[in-house]
Amino acid sequence: MSADPHIDSVDARAVLDRCRDAVTPALREAVARLDHASREQAGYHLGWTELDGRPGTGGGKAVRPALALISAAAADAPSSVGLPGAVAVELVHNFSLLHDDLMDGDTERRHRRTVWAQWGAAAAILTGDALLALAHEVLLETGSPDAARAARLLAATVRELVRGQAEDVAFEQRDDVTVSECLAMAAGKTGSLLATSAAIGSVLAGGSTELTAALQSYGAEVGMAFQLVDDLLGIWGDPAVTGKPVLSDLRSRKMSLPVTYAVHHGGDAGRQLARWLATPGPATEPELRRIAGLVEDGGGRDWAAAEARRRMTLAEKALAGAELPDRPRAELVALGRYLVDREF
Amino acid sequence: MSADPHIDSVDARAVLDRCRDAVTPALREAVARLDHASREQAGYHLGWTELDGRPGTGGGKAVRPALALISAAAADAPSSVGLPGAVAVELVHNFSLLHDDLMDGDTERRHRRTVWAQWGAAAAILTGDALLALAHEVLLETGSPDAARAARLLAATVRELVRGQAEDVAFEQRDDVTVSECLAMAAGKTGSLLATSAAIGSVLAGGSTELTAALQSYGAEVGMAFQLVDDLLGIWGDPAVTGKPVLSDLRSRKMSLPVTYAVHHGGDAGRQLARWLATPGPATEPELRRIAGLVEDGGGRDWAAAEARRRMTLAEKALAGAELPDRPRAELVALGRYLVDREF
Repeated sequence: MSADPHIDSVDARAVLDRCRDAVTPALREAVARLDHASREQAGYHLGWTELDGRPGTGGGKAVRPALALISAAAADAPSSVGLPGAVAVELVHNFSLLHDDLMDGDTERRHRRTVWAQWGAAAAILTGDALLALAHEVLLETGSPDAARAARLLAATVRELVRGQAEDVAFEQRDDVTVSECLAMAAGKTGSLLATSAAIGSVLAGGSTELTAALQSYGAEVGMAFQLVDDLLGIWGDPAVTGKPVLSDLRSRKMSLPVTYAVHHGGDAGRQLARWLATPGPATEPELRRIAGLVEDGGGRDWAAAEARRRMTLAEKALAGAELPDRPRAELVALGRYLVDREF
Repeated sequence: MSADPHIDSVDARAVLDRCRDAVTPALREAVARLDHASREQAGYHLGWTELDGRPGTGGGKAVRPALALISAAAADAPSSVGLPGAVAVELVHNFSLLHDDLMDGDTERRHRRTVWAQWGAAAAILTGDALLALAHEVLLETGSPDAARAARLLAATVRELVRGQAEDVAFEQRDDVTVSECLAMAAGKTGSLLATSAAIGSVLAGGSTELTAALQSYGAEVGMAFQLVDDLLGIWGDPAVTGKPVLSDLRSRKMSLPVTYAVHHGGDAGRQLARWLATPGPATEPELRRIAGLVEDGGGRDWAAAEARRRMTLAEKALAGAELPDRPRAELVALGRYLVDREF
């Protein structure tokens, strides 16, 4: 997009590494306070330990805590002011992963067994509950009025996550989900916590309402772009990169955004696609390739790619209209592009 | 116990009714904000609606919200100051019921189908999560520093609930659970939220640290007494009163407090009891009656009754040592006695 020298000078991976290094000690300290069982399961889930007790090989990219730290810098505060927020959003993210893996029946995450698959449903429910409660404790311990506002924002976000996941579960039983319903679901499941992550540092730093709102818009739009790209990768992604089986979202007949678009706006290809979706059963890889072709012929691939680009433009516009220092601005833009500009 | 004229003048049931009337509108208003699915399921779970859409016949006694309102009065504030706390503790209580019913595989609660049995596991998980988040929102919306302290207390309490439930689940796989482990589990599952309910109004009203701590002790001890009595009723309670099958806790071979006591301190009867517990399988009612006799011969019944009385004395002592107006003091004592002085 722009050739802003500030943005080009930012190495998004280095930003993520720096932020993860800043957050991990506080995150570990928080998790250490959990009851024995929750601590063990959360440590495994976060990639800190393996099942045999050896140290783990690390977890995810920790995008949400990075956004939270930069968000405080965006409000002209030391990024450490965003630290409780960074820990809290990461805890909430993992609370939702633990519960979602159970609800979705997923036995693997990043090539490792999920907590419910290893320890049972009660473990995943309870450890998730504990992480959610811990997120609020970590935020509220700072004792500032800003922290209370941040905690309120976080609680509202959890309800958005719940709404999105409830819709996701309900959509599996329906064959008439519209594109706008699907977008609203993604806004809940993916957009809401990224929006809050990008805003919570500013809230903790007492940033202006305008700045906080702009950061929230940025995070929400990046979240939508991310989900659109994720859905594209779920069909056309390289298994070696995504870590998922080839054509995985078609295999599970998921009503992802490109599929939903093609069903509703894809003419004859869309009608063929809809008929296939309505007849469950296993499918061969050649058949799945033919179905991917229908999603493409029905315009789902192009639409999702264009919509992802449009969302990224909106995200960057939200930042462009806000007052924040050059460095966090450049880091946010670079981070957003890094997340979304994956091969698809 | 004492013949205090203040206490004798309090009708505990009238106090509960008054408090429920005060809390219900705010509770309904909060639940109305939930996403569609959570709202429907929470409304059913709370006894406000039946499955066919008819109005429900009401929920439980709403003990926790009553304690929260009286707690504010104990700190010399209008009980309405405790209202967000009352709503929050009732939401947290129901969050834990929704999740526990699923984990415990209970298909009925108060002769009605549980949410997971009716709508599936995902529904119970998500509606529980939503109620927990909503509890924090309701508290934090008041925007006062006291509210932030109350929310922090509530989050710590949720972690105690989680610890207690995790231990309860783990104990099912063990045959060597000690009485003190069993007491610690009950302190988490039952004591912690009653302690917080009895203290949260004072926190919201800016009550002194001493008063809040005394109220917390009172609630914690009442909670333990309540659990001990509940365990006694689980063996010797009248099914017509408890709503559970006769001898239900023995039928499920639950390591309740009287059973655990008898196993460890009951001599020969305790050893016979332990052998029976170690051999699973269905049991006839005469056999269960014989087992109840072993718990009694092993001292489990007398110990639990004495321990419940001791806990009530501690609860009332905690209040006696604190400064609070006569009316809330009398109401708290009366409420505690009402909860615990059931037939056993």
